[in-house]
Amino acid sequence: MMTADILITDGFLLPEPGTDRVTERGYVAIRGSSIGAVGDMADLGTVRAREVVDAGGAVVMPGLVNCHCHAAMTLFRGLADDLALGEWLGEHIFPAESRHVNPEMVYWCSRLAAAEMLLSGTTMVADGYFFADAAARAFSETGLRAVAAQGVIDFPAPGVPDPADNVRVAARFLDAWHLRHRLVTPAVFAHSPYTCAPETLQRAKQEADRRGRLFFIHTAETQGEPSLIQDRRGASPVRHLDALGLLDPLTVCVHCVWVDEEDIAILARRGARAVLCPQSHLKLASGIAPFAALRAQGVVVGLGTDSAASNNSLDMFREMDVCAKVQKARTGDPVAAPAKTILRMATGEGAEVLGSGGWGGVLRPGAPADVILIDRNSPHLTPFYGPDLLVYGARGSDVRTVIVDGRPVVRDRRLLTADLDAVMARVRAFAAQAG
Amino acid sequence: MMTADILITDGFLLPEPGTDRVTERGYVAIRGSSIGAVGDMADLGTVRAREVVDAGGAVVMPGLVNCHCHAAMTLFRGLADDLALGEWLGEHIFPAESRHVNPEMVYWCSRLAAAEMLLSGTTMVADGYFFADAAARAFSETGLRAVAAQGVIDFPAPGVPDPADNVRVAARFLDAWHLRHRLVTPAVFAHSPYTCAPETLQRAKQEADRRGRLFFIHTAETQGEPSLIQDRRGASPVRHLDALGLLDPLTVCVHCVWVDEEDIAILARRGARAVLCPQSHLKLASGIAPFAALRAQGVVVGLGTDSAASNNSLDMFREMDVCAKVQKARTGDPVAAPAKTILRMATGEGAEVLGSGGWGGVLRPGAPADVILIDRNSPHLTPFYGPDLLVYGARGSDVRTVIVDGRPVVRDRRLLTADLDAVMARVRAFAAQAG
Repeated sequence: MMTADILITDGFLLPEPGTDRVTERGYVAIRGSSIGAVGDMADLGTVRAREVVDAGGAVVMPGLVNCHCHAAMTLFRGLADDLALGEWLGEHIFPAESRHVNPEMVYWCSRLAAAEMLLSGTTMVADGYFFADAAARAFSETGLRAVAAQGVIDFPAPGVPDPADNVRVAARFLDAWHLRHRLVTPAVFAHSPYTCAPETLQRAKQEADRRGRLFFIHTAETQGEPSLIQDRRGASPVRHLDALGLLDPLTVCVHCVWVDEEDIAILARRGARAVLCPQSHLKLASGIAPFAALRAQGVVVGLGTDSAASNNSLDMFREMDVCAKVQKARTGDPVAAPAKTILRMATGEGAEVLGSGGWGGVLRPGAPADVILIDRNSPHLTPFYGPDLLVYGARGSDVRTVIVDGRPVVRDRRLLTADLDAVMARVRAFAAQAG
Repeated sequence: MMTADILITDGFLLPEPGTDRVTERGYVAIRGSSIGAVGDMADLGTVRAREVVDAGGAVVMPGLVNCHCHAAMTLFRGLADDLALGEWLGEHIFPAESRHVNPEMVYWCSRLAAAEMLLSGTTMVADGYFFADAAARAFSETGLRAVAAQGVIDFPAPGVPDPADNVRVAARFLDAWHLRHRLVTPAVFAHSPYTCAPETLQRAKQEADRRGRLFFIHTAETQGEPSLIQDRRGASPVRHLDALGLLDPLTVCVHCVWVDEEDIAILARRGARAVLCPQSHLKLASGIAPFAALRAQGVVVGLGTDSAASNNSLDMFREMDVCAKVQKARTGDPVAAPAKTILRMATGEGAEVLGSGGWGGVLRPGAPADVILIDRNSPHLTPFYGPDLLVYGARGSDVRTVIVDGRPVVRDRRLLTADLDAVMARVRAFAAQAG
């Protein structure tokens, strides 16, 4: 007889990566924080389970992995739309940040972002911002698995008035959160090659490396960035980072919109990861990333929403849909970004970007029990011929149940880990100052 | 003292087109099938209302207008994804249609589509398909305002085995639905310049004109279409239609992805309407339409979802979002498609495309009472600095209440005009045959 803490019955199980086999009526048994068993209902013997979740035909799949976010910037959602990145950052976001960012704001706005993400099926996020300690507390308390990265930039920044302290602050954060909470891993987020000097980047990477932590950096986001870095450093952004010795499997290059073939070959050779944020790229008129070329060369690619200020949603279903569609138009090739590939990027491959070593983002015995249930019993998901519709038709609000690390955090579309009204009220109070 | 059938109180009212003035706490009074009064709560005197809807801070706005759909094709949602238009049509959709399309299928699948649209805030649709009579019945019974157009194509088609009858069938439909139902207006939908001979197009347009009805036609959808029509007819698709005398304000050219400057000038000069379906254009790898050029020359432009088979959703919020974003990337200009413009296209301008003469798609005394309420009290719409977030952040599932023609059809996210479970069961039974 099998025992389980949570037994999910009668679910439509997504296929294992690389196969097409769905399980029309399957079960998932969770033991502690891991998936214990997965199979067909027909093969399910007697189970003693603490809790049974009847999926009733709902899709059961690994939780989504959002590989790039600035959760606290949820405060600036819709504050300044329809602007180019330079003007948006320089005239709106940086000034607003200098006035309104403090640990309390980061904590409450990150709680709101965590709530939005969990309610729409994201079970893991990679976040980068200032006062990362406050963000990390917010994620851990809301029950969202997170890589929380402290921002490093060579300007006075929230919590780091003297840029000379930027790497030191990041190092302190890495130490403070070392094994502090099982859901939150600390990391370093260097803003970009155009806002950080080479020495800053190298020192920040060293602090991360010394502790085996991830190093994130915005890379080649806008069309102007390659020529800017070429002028200043005599190389493209990627080649500049490579010359500094920063590229390896623990480095995550976020955006990669304006990378050329040689850049991509370098990323692949070094095993550096790439993260695309297609909606943010569109909204800030940055462009459309060379998705197929990155993947063709073997770069491991994740998907991210970027912040709510440039999206303006943290719904990974929306991100998957737009990523798949926009690549087809960019290339004129309708199979440029198949739904199956996109689903993998938003789950297992995303987890790999964040250093899972292949254990995350899959429904497989031994994997972390980060599992979501998606209601299919609605007009917009009818008929349901297969999982591709999760990319082209589902939305975050279809997520019914969310389990992170074996713990239910959303049940019947209700968040169990926060008083949502209170969180929204706190953020609205901050917004009344910022708006 | 004012009287009203329905009084909506405490709503966040969208600004009148062309102004930036929102009403933070406003009311809308509906009398019969029209909007009777709109104003600030502070100016609301005593009202005797049959029904009071407390918006409680929800957004109150005109219902969305979906200017292009093939509702019955909801049966094929997700049946064949990640394919180019030619292969998708020729190898999957046309064969599936020849086997599975009959009046009963059109009726039930159109009911499902109508339900999906109403639940996501669409109050008016322009639909084109075969067995348009069955679609028209479905729309009228579900309480969705519709222009239902009978398809005309020079091939054997569902319900029109002999193409020689195609225009006659369309004319009969126009007569059968003449003033038959206040919500449904009949029209003609000629498939395209590459599937209809010039004489077919002219005869179909004449039948529509004779009765003052709209004439829809797929125009310049794929990159290959202009050269195809050039080879066959010696002109671009638009110039070909113009040479046939088909372009005027009652003609709606759908897609217009591959139109050049001269084509656009002709559309503008003739007053012909254009409809863009950005998600379908992306998904079928057709391209990105020249939004700014069409608008700059004064063409009246609407938005459509196209069918659920090439989208795969009928959610106009999603359509607005993608339209706004993808135009920014196409042009490199972050103000290429501002959210305010997109909102207008999806409401008042869409209604104008469908021949409203300026009376639809606005919150204004005398306008049809097609009104929706959008719940803002959720994480993904917090904070809410202004209506742009309806484009960049809202989704169909945020729609709480829908009123069409003065009649509530959705209340607290529940459809009042159909047994949704029964409709979905019927469509699933058809899908079991098609899948």
